[in-house]
Amino acid sequence: MNADPDSGLLSPVRAGTPAEAATGDLAWLRALLDAEAALARAQASTGLIPREAADAITDAAARIEIDVVALARAARETANPVVGLIKELTEAAGTEYVHRGSTSQDVFDTAMMLVAARTRALIAADLEATASALEDLARAHRDTIMAGRTLTAHAVPTTFGLKAAGWRQLTLDALDRLNRVVLPVSLGGAAGTRAAYAEYARLAGLPDGYPQRLQTAFAEETGLAETTLPWHTLRTPTADLAAALSFTAAALGKIAVDVQFLTRTEVGEVTEPAGEGRGGSSAMPHKRNPVLATLIRSAALQVPVLATGVTQALVSEDERSAGAWHAEWQLLRECLRLTGGAAHTAAELARGLVVAGGRMRENLGLTHGQIVSERLSTVLAPLLGKTRAKEVLGHASKLALEQGKPLGEVLSGLPEITGVLPAESLADLLDPANYTGSAGVLTDAALQAREEKPGTS
Amino acid sequence: MNADPDSGLLSPVRAGTPAEAATGDLAWLRALLDAEAALARAQASTGLIPREAADAITDAAARIEIDVVALARAARETANPVVGLIKELTEAAGTEYVHRGSTSQDVFDTAMMLVAARTRALIAADLEATASALEDLARAHRDTIMAGRTLTAHAVPTTFGLKAAGWRQLTLDALDRLNRVVLPVSLGGAAGTRAAYAEYARLAGLPDGYPQRLQTAFAEETGLAETTLPWHTLRTPTADLAAALSFTAAALGKIAVDVQFLTRTEVGEVTEPAGEGRGGSSAMPHKRNPVLATLIRSAALQVPVLATGVTQALVSEDERSAGAWHAEWQLLRECLRLTGGAAHTAAELARGLVVAGGRMRENLGLTHGQIVSERLSTVLAPLLGKTRAKEVLGHASKLALEQGKPLGEVLSGLPEITGVLPAESLADLLDPANYTGSAGVLTDAALQAREEKPGTS
Amino acid sequence: MNADPDSGLLSPVRAGTPAEAATGDLAWLRALLDAEAALARAQASTGLIPREAADAITDAAARIEIDVVALARAARETANPVVGLIKELTEAAGTEYVHRGSTSQDVFDTAMMLVAARTRALIAADLEATASALEDLARAHRDTIMAGRTLTAHAVPTTFGLKAAGWRQLTLDALDRLNRVVLPVSLGGAAGTRAAYAEYARLAGLPDGYPQRLQTAFAEETGLAETTLPWHTLRTPTADLAAALSFTAAALGKIAVDVQFLTRTEVGEVTEPAGEGRGGSSAMPHKRNPVLATLIRSAALQVPVLATGVTQALVSEDERSAGAWHAEWQLLRECLRLTGGAAHTAAELARGLVVAGGRMRENLGLTHGQIVSERLSTVLAPLLGKTRAKEVLGHASKLALEQGKPLGEVLSGLPEITGVLPAESLADLLDPANYTGSAGVLTDAALQAREEKPGTS
Amino acid sequence: MNADPDSGLLSPVRAGTPAEAATGDLAWLRALLDAEAALARAQASTGLIPREAADAITDAAARIEIDVVALARAARETANPVVGLIKELTEAAGTEYVHRGSTSQDVFDTAMMLVAARTRALIAADLEATASALEDLARAHRDTIMAGRTLTAHAVPTTFGLKAAGWRQLTLDALDRLNRVVLPVSLGGAAGTRAAYAEYARLAGLPDGYPQRLQTAFAEETGLAETTLPWHTLRTPTADLAAALSFTAAALGKIAVDVQFLTRTEVGEVTEPAGEGRGGSSAMPHKRNPVLATLIRSAALQVPVLATGVTQALVSEDERSAGAWHAEWQLLRECLRLTGGAAHTAAELARGLVVAGGRMRENLGLTHGQIVSERLSTVLAPLLGKTRAKEVLGHASKLALEQGKPLGEVLSGLPEITGVLPAESLADLLDPANYTGSAGVLTDAALQAREEKPGTS
Repeated sequence: MNADPDSGLLSPVRAGTPAEAATGDLAWLRALLDAEAALARAQASTGLIPREAADAITDAAARIEIDVVALARAARETANPVVGLIKELTEAAGTEYVHRGSTSQDVFDTAMMLVAARTRALIAADLEATASALEDLARAHRDTIMAGRTLTAHAVPTTFGLKAAGWRQLTLDALDRLNRVVLPVSLGGAAGTRAAYAEYARLAGLPDGYPQRLQTAFAEETGLAETTLPWHTLRTPTADLAAALSFTAAALGKIAVDVQFLTRTEVGEVTEPAGEGRGGSSAMPHKRNPVLATLIRSAALQVPVLATGVTQALVSEDERSAGAWHAEWQLLRECLRLTGGAAHTAAELARGLVVAGGRMRENLGLTHGQIVSERLSTVLAPLLGKTRAKEVLGHASKLALEQGKPLGEVLSGLPEITGVLPAESLADLLDPANYTGSAGVLTDAALQAREEKPGTS
Repeated sequence: MNADPDSGLLSPVRAGTPAEAATGDLAWLRALLDAEAALARAQASTGLIPREAADAITDAAARIEIDVVALARAARETANPVVGLIKELTEAAGTEYVHRGSTSQDVFDTAMMLVAARTRALIAADLEATASALEDLARAHRDTIMAGRTLTAHAVPTTFGLKAAGWRQLTLDALDRLNRVVLPVSLGGAAGTRAAYAEYARLAGLPDGYPQRLQTAFAEETGLAETTLPWHTLRTPTADLAAALSFTAAALGKIAVDVQFLTRTEVGEVTEPAGEGRGGSSAMPHKRNPVLATLIRSAALQVPVLATGVTQALVSEDERSAGAWHAEWQLLRECLRLTGGAAHTAAELARGLVVAGGRMRENLGLTHGQIVSERLSTVLAPLLGKTRAKEVLGHASKLALEQGKPLGEVLSGLPEITGVLPAESLADLLDPANYTGSAGVLTDAALQAREEKPGTS
Repeated sequence: MNADPDSGLLSPVRAGTPAEAATGDLAWLRALLDAEAALARAQASTGLIPREAADAITDAAARIEIDVVALARAARETANPVVGLIKELTEAAGTEYVHRGSTSQDVFDTAMMLVAARTRALIAADLEATASALEDLARAHRDTIMAGRTLTAHAVPTTFGLKAAGWRQLTLDALDRLNRVVLPVSLGGAAGTRAAYAEYARLAGLPDGYPQRLQTAFAEETGLAETTLPWHTLRTPTADLAAALSFTAAALGKIAVDVQFLTRTEVGEVTEPAGEGRGGSSAMPHKRNPVLATLIRSAALQVPVLATGVTQALVSEDERSAGAWHAEWQLLRECLRLTGGAAHTAAELARGLVVAGGRMRENLGLTHGQIVSERLSTVLAPLLGKTRAKEVLGHASKLALEQGKPLGEVLSGLPEITGVLPAESLADLLDPANYTGSAGVLTDAALQAREEKPGTS
Repeated sequence: MNADPDSGLLSPVRAGTPAEAATGDLAWLRALLDAEAALARAQASTGLIPREAADAITDAAARIEIDVVALARAARETANPVVGLIKELTEAAGTEYVHRGSTSQDVFDTAMMLVAARTRALIAADLEATASALEDLARAHRDTIMAGRTLTAHAVPTTFGLKAAGWRQLTLDALDRLNRVVLPVSLGGAAGTRAAYAEYARLAGLPDGYPQRLQTAFAEETGLAETTLPWHTLRTPTADLAAALSFTAAALGKIAVDVQFLTRTEVGEVTEPAGEGRGGSSAMPHKRNPVLATLIRSAALQVPVLATGVTQALVSEDERSAGAWHAEWQLLRECLRLTGGAAHTAAELARGLVVAGGRMRENLGLTHGQIVSERLSTVLAPLLGKTRAKEVLGHASKLALEQGKPLGEVLSGLPEITGVLPAESLADLLDPANYTGSAGVLTDAALQAREEKPGTS
């Protein structure tokens, strides 16, 4: 049977990225086969099935060619693809020891965690790369001053270093949350009691407590974690994963919207890395679109809503749900690959971001000095009294705006000001570079924080 | 380049359904080419480009073979795949008249609406089929009584006819909302002013007002609607479509959860249609899972959250958004195909649903007659006084539950009751079949409503 | 019992607005009482209960003082407040005819629709006011040219008139969707069969078909619509309402983000209406925050996610749901009041928006003429050949950017250009005011569209 | 000014619960005042302002009476209520040291974290109580067998002990995630540089690095945590909190849907605790609605969608957002109070849940023995060959269903079976109590797990 390619045509943010390949149908099929093979090996190492059977299953799982399209369509009959898979794998392995005592959900959920673990490693690497590039930016621009903007307007000066350090901090927070997620094997049997595993063990004359030993071996074979209880309808792992991916995509989205604003024609304080033809428009040769930030933002807009559906699947009824479980699969895959695509794109963006320090300085002057009005209020209050200081400044500010004059010029024409502040002092106060507060030390502290507490942020 | 197949492995609800094919990457690519070709023909018919050019473009669009994977990956450079497509189409058509005066978003959005229109037709057909099958069920079971359940408990009797009529009503409501959505062409040019279309027309010496004439011709060529204003960032069409699909999937979800409950081992009032091996479990031969309802429910859990992201894209900044637009594509495609899969599955479910009238009757008796206690309250109140009636009934009800006796038996042992109600009367009152209220006429009215007002519900 | 005030402290977008009062607990309590009274009157007018009883109930409903806090807390015992309300109303009216044959959900849902109808009228009025103010803006600025921005960068010129016309169009689309929602009475009885209504009618010797007549009378008394089937678990009305409110809030959100960008310090093309102290910052006297747009955007970010929960409640099990129904109430109320607050705020914003045409003109020059590069491409292509034209323009564009020179100056120094375009012609081509395409006629058409098809857009 | 009471009329799940009071407008106002007072004390203890001023502010904050309605309405002018609050507090304290160097967001976010911390403690206590009651249930019913249900149908036996242990596990997972959230003070100043704090310190002649010392003192005064960087637009704390609340509400929702199913008229395996009149229906005396589970489920359906909006606010532009921040407030409050109400209700439910072991046993027999068919397959496969075993069992199963006979009876009539299995053996195999797998030891392990690793699960 034929199917469309999963080309990423509608998802450029992940097209061709590592996360795309790691989450495709073939990767999923691979993980399903890996899960079956690992289960067989775990059963062999715990004495339930012959080693030869496990070898045959492992071999067959490695070389079997399955028509994934046919498998997917057949899955409509059972609502999941594992039933069909077992049939094919059993035939290929030439042994009935495949899937012994198991249930579809054990295999599917274990495979889902394998896909998650593999993709998480890719995302983590890209988040590390992003953080590292942002660290370089923060370091290089520790003292590059720019306008701090609040509620869309210039407020007080800040530095690009602090901004980049903040982006990095969010990136590391995301990484931390992602790494914290425990990805376990699933081993519950038909209804979470592991009864058939135990029954086969009983028939084989193995001592009591077999299923717990099996879980340990299964975890070892897969590299996944163990759980206290089977999680067929205790969906902590998927809910945690979705939440961490949602956080990650949205955190990267913050970087994206900031970059988009800073690249605005009117602002021009940063530029996206230029690739061959990237962001260009054939009809409008002057235009360079911030495509990387656009791709990241497209993911940030999607992942949180997708993740909501996974969280809602915590409300899974009975011992296995009829629908909530099935709703998780595609949602989770999309969360993984969109976030993976966004992280990959973010690394590229962070590594290549061009900072226009001159333009930042220039824009700082757009309010003709008013960007330090907070400082002037602070300094003048004890000199003139708070109320009078406010009046004088308000008046000067209005004059400056109306006449398009620098605030400093207006102020130095007011005897009330010159009476209390020498010209030199006023000039110092009006220099935005002198009013960045703790921006520098905060940047330093943020960059240092991780060295001290590796693995946390 | 190679890509995974888009097999539906994680989305059995749509695997192999018509909506899947209609929304795949190839269908989307086809729609993009159709949009370019239609634009060229519209420009030819309005005198902007030679008829031969339009023919060449139409021919090329029909036969061109594009590596969709390469196209998708290249789209990362421009954040959309149209730029790459134009290059290939221009080469294949051997004319520079491709995409004249146009912009990526015009073509992409028109293509998205073509995909939507084509898929909507499929969904509508399946909703019609579902409604029709439900109509048959409602008619056949107009008087099949069953327990009406509220807040999980038996309340008063109802009929399966009314239940099926309700499911049909929701299905028709969904159909109505879906059909109501206006799917237009997009014709805005670079920033919604249609300036380049107008400029080419000016150079070609065409009279004023050309872009509006072009829109009319473009709409004719594609079968889509026109809009008053270009909608690059006025996202009414996509928001409307997402809302209607969300409604549809959730409406079908109501049917699914009802069917799932009614098929419960403890209930057994309906059974899903049995296909070859459908819903079976190899390890548990007695088990028949409600797989169709499960698939539908999996879609109902996904589509509303996906649609949220599309609605949120109404908040599209400027003349064209950097990210909100891009977030719509995959979300909308998933909404279309999941809803399409759900509708297809619902039709199968409705057509094959097996109703166990005997079991319904049997379950009606589970409360030993208490299911008509509301009626008894109503009838006894004027005879005994409201307060006394309540006391007597409450007492009898308690006795019946404790002793596991039918309420009727208890009541006919109470002189206070037999004094006001002859035995025959009591028996009549206790027969659930006599207390279905307007169930029958409501069913009739619902089935008739549509005949009278075709196209609405 | 005491409760906190519902002051809007965390929801400034609706604090003190008409929608707030219309959706508060007291308004809801009022609507519940109105529903009971209307039901009684409908039952009187259809002969089920004495006119005097209906009058007594109506009177009692009008003057009763209910401790809403105590009522709300007591509602925990029954999961809804109607049970407690009936007890109090019955006592106050001194008649047992209160709530005859009815069920909590009939009364609650009817009340919910009354609240919705009353609030919708307020929202509609504010949307009309918004649209009208935007119409004035669009008319006044039909030819005020400004930069069209796409993917954050200047693309080609547009007009503020077209922008305002677009905002108005979305506002009217929202109004249209809102007005289209059918808000019906609820009349289902315990499980949607209307059995108790019918039973009382039977006991009263009324002819068959009573419940349908009762619905008609109930609809007349409340001003709400009728439905073909009881909708206890056929949640079309609430789902439709939520979708329309979601659309509305998000549509207003588009206006908000545009305004926020245009008020940016770097842009300055519009200013929010100045109120006494509005948007000011005591510490930063120069700052004027776009607070109205901020409030609107806060609603636009909330309503779509809230509405999702209401849509999901379409998946209501059985004849009455245990939880899905209950989840709707607060979500729907918040959707109503946040959207109401946003519409009220939008009207204020639209009425007072100050447009800085001069600044728009100025910003148009930021790319030194490149904003018309699309036009130059179009014109030069036939003169120089498409490839050569592109090369020349790209080269000139680059030179202009590097040297900070106007594109026109660079071009007029190129013999290849001056050879095909006389200086005058070039100047014309370079004037942004000459390249607004159909902006004017689109604006006209949009403003006219509604006059022609009143009530639609 | 007057406002409606915030009575919980539309939110019975939280009406009158501790979380309601802890999150009301007055509690929020209290937290805002506490934040201002704590800031003043922190500034006094670090030498910035006189101790007397801090005392006066603390006193004023404790006794001031603010018209919260007027404050809320005035907040429309500035988009937040802090500006108005400072004015009143300054007047009441009679000192200008109020809010020194600070910004609205510092105070508001700190107050939000105080509200969160206070409410979290309440939720945590209720989750502990819930877990403890579930632990008792799990212990008491360690060996109470019941049907394990998968995809709505009976699968294999399980125990109520394991089910309750699973519910407890999810509850502890929620508690763990909630406790893990770091709730910090906010100290950023106008744009995250803490410049005004530093400036005041400079003027006061304090040594460098003042703002960091102030943060430490502020954290001590409030009991909240510190952060490496100001988090005005690095929204990790709110995103984390929303995610944990979403998890919690949905986790409790799983318990609720399970309880709702088990209380079904057809199932009757558990009953909600009976309160005075709780869950009753006046018209249907036999009915007892699972109101506690219904309330919990209503919260589980709301919180995840609300939390989505908070996660999305991670995408906060610039140094302070114009709208994303404002959207968090009400969403987060609702998440806190709905989850708080749900946890409170869950504790009541868990403490009072009545388990009908007899009914569980009875229902186990509904499939006439087929609930152990998995076991029979397992045992018979080696005896008859896998294929033959399947055929025989399938045949017997069908016969049993058709004839309504116990599977055991059918099997013991088949020579092929009796030939390999003695009657006694067959009886043992058919006893569901003998096929609960690891249910018992899993229950034990789950209950023990926490004792060993206190604070984790």
